Amino acid sequence: MIETPYLLFLGDAPDPLAAKVAQGIKDWRPENCVGQLRLEGCQADMGLTDMTLEEARAAGAKTLVIGVANRGGVISQAWKEVLLAALDAGFDIASGLHNLLHDEADLAARAEERGRALHDVRVPEVQYPIADGKKRQGKRVLAVGTDCSIGKMYTALALDAEMKKQGMKSSFRATGQTGILITGEGVPLDAVVADFMAGAVEWLTPDNDPDHWDVIEGQGSLYHVSYSGVTMALIHGGQPDALILCHEPTRTHMRGLPDYSLPSLEELRELSLTLARVANPACQVVGISVNTKALSDEEADSYLAGLEERLGLPAVDPYRHGAGKLVAALAKV
Amino acid sequence: MIETPYLLFLGDAPDPLAAKVAQGIKDWRPENCVGQLRLEGCQADMGLTDMTLEEARAAGAKTLVIGVANRGGVISQAWKEVLLAALDAGFDIASGLHNLLHDEADLAARAEERGRALHDVRVPEVQYPIADGKKRQGKRVLAVGTDCSIGKMYTALALDAEMKKQGMKSSFRATGQTGILITGEGVPLDAVVADFMAGAVEWLTPDNDPDHWDVIEGQGSLYHVSYSGVTMALIHGGQPDALILCHEPTRTHMRGLPDYSLPSLEELRELSLTLARVANPACQVVGISVNTKALSDEEADSYLAGLEERLGLPAVDPYRHGAGKLVAALAKV
Repeated sequence: MIETPYLLFLGDAPDPLAAKVAQGIKDWRPENCVGQLRLEGCQADMGLTDMTLEEARAAGAKTLVIGVANRGGVISQAWKEVLLAALDAGFDIASGLHNLLHDEADLAARAEERGRALHDVRVPEVQYPIADGKKRQGKRVLAVGTDCSIGKMYTALALDAEMKKQGMKSSFRATGQTGILITGEGVPLDAVVADFMAGAVEWLTPDNDPDHWDVIEGQGSLYHVSYSGVTMALIHGGQPDALILCHEPTRTHMRGLPDYSLPSLEELRELSLTLARVANPACQVVGISVNTKALSDEEADSYLAGLEERLGLPAVDPYRHGAGKLVAALAKV
Repeated sequence: MIETPYLLFLGDAPDPLAAKVAQGIKDWRPENCVGQLRLEGCQADMGLTDMTLEEARAAGAKTLVIGVANRGGVISQAWKEVLLAALDAGFDIASGLHNLLHDEADLAARAEERGRALHDVRVPEVQYPIADGKKRQGKRVLAVGTDCSIGKMYTALALDAEMKKQGMKSSFRATGQTGILITGEGVPLDAVVADFMAGAVEWLTPDNDPDHWDVIEGQGSLYHVSYSGVTMALIHGGQPDALILCHEPTRTHMRGLPDYSLPSLEELRELSLTLARVANPACQVVGISVNTKALSDEEADSYLAGLEERLGLPAVDPYRHGAGKLVAALAKV
């Protein structure tokens, strides 16, 4: 568990996209963001107050979160100076970078010396159990996609936000680096050892109140051959009561796999439901979440109306239209 | 890669079942077995010549393989003395035990000193790639089961043996500890990190002659919620041309999951074929392998005949009847 609130480190981000982790935190947990720290030449801006380490500490920040991708997979000297100073100033540091904070000898030594924590959220910090498949109390919804990187995390965060807004009990359950940094906890599922994947998802979504919803962040796709095993573990470990189908209508092939075409939403519905019902025979597909960024307003409306007609399910772009329609469908489960 | 031939260490096995790893090696790769080494009170016997370490070295043995489960997950003092002496005598040591040889300081130090290898086959020794899903040359067959521990490894070994007997080109591709010890190489798939599972299977079954068969050892089951992600990675990483369905007709629930019933063979056929065709649209289900150990000869014959009628596929117990019928079906793929 990462201590909040955060100071967001944007480094020398060459463009706003490089700081998408920071953007996710700012968009979904603004109450966790005390300010931002930028180096010279930084081309990203979260619209937060620029602060020094000392100012942020004085304002209550507990963890410096690296909200930006680094270049070439190396932690530069300029970054290193900030990170060491942050430890000196009493910050923990959290990072989802591929190269680990723990592998930097000077950072590890300084953190040890100062009694601060380094959180590498790509690395599991828990010894997860083998899944036992036992029915758990409470409700769970999982987003599954026709492909990877299609809006599953965004959909889950939007569902969780809308449920909370309506006074429903819900928890966003992060299964990837960005999600973990946004909420401060979760399971880095793609880094878990095979035998423990489904058990890690069970651990993440334990018994809860009967009217509480775990909104589980999806990963990969049943149709993406590189990562489908991870998706499967989410479906069986999460034993969802409800599935949301996620899609991006202009994608021409599976991400990174030029020879693989996307399945239809009908195929995804049938396959994911068949698999989900192994763990939870009552599971239902309740709606469709579409990333319509590439479409005009009119095209999006027309496309979504067509989907609703075709599949008999509510279909929205939560970014454009909010997640209200999907939450209404979940409320009936 | 583990150097052959082996001296099989049977330790102080309390009964023959405790030495099932040794039995598997003896049954499937007798040419790799120079002899056996037993401690006082050993209740297992592979029918091999009992040898001292020195006799086995003189007979050409290169690796001492621990072919027996240890009690209480501890390497006893009696075992330790043999293992240290084996390193002194010039043996490598291979083990599939949960507690690792590498974690025993005295063994690790002695191996280092003597320049010998310790093979803990539960631990991946390779950094596997992310799967790229590219079509590979050569043919691949995978055994999938209605449950775990239902005869998939046995089926694959029997197929490989029968194919070799008939002069076909084939390789058994091990994905579990016992399989790896039998063949001396493979991927310990359940210990691979999630993101790299499918890539590990691709790595294990590379491009080959067009008429060469990789016979891939299955793991888990699509219907076993604890391990289904591993099965999925085998189906997508292995991109099989052919599937063999494996079943045990007297099992009353999924192994270790009392609340889960087994799927029908029809369900398994449809689901596994749907998933396999994502990676290989030409994949076919070619036959059924049944573990009929709990049935009489007559019951087995009648059950298998019924299955053939019901599913329109050849159905055999390879242990009772050999794998000839399944290989004949594969030869048509």
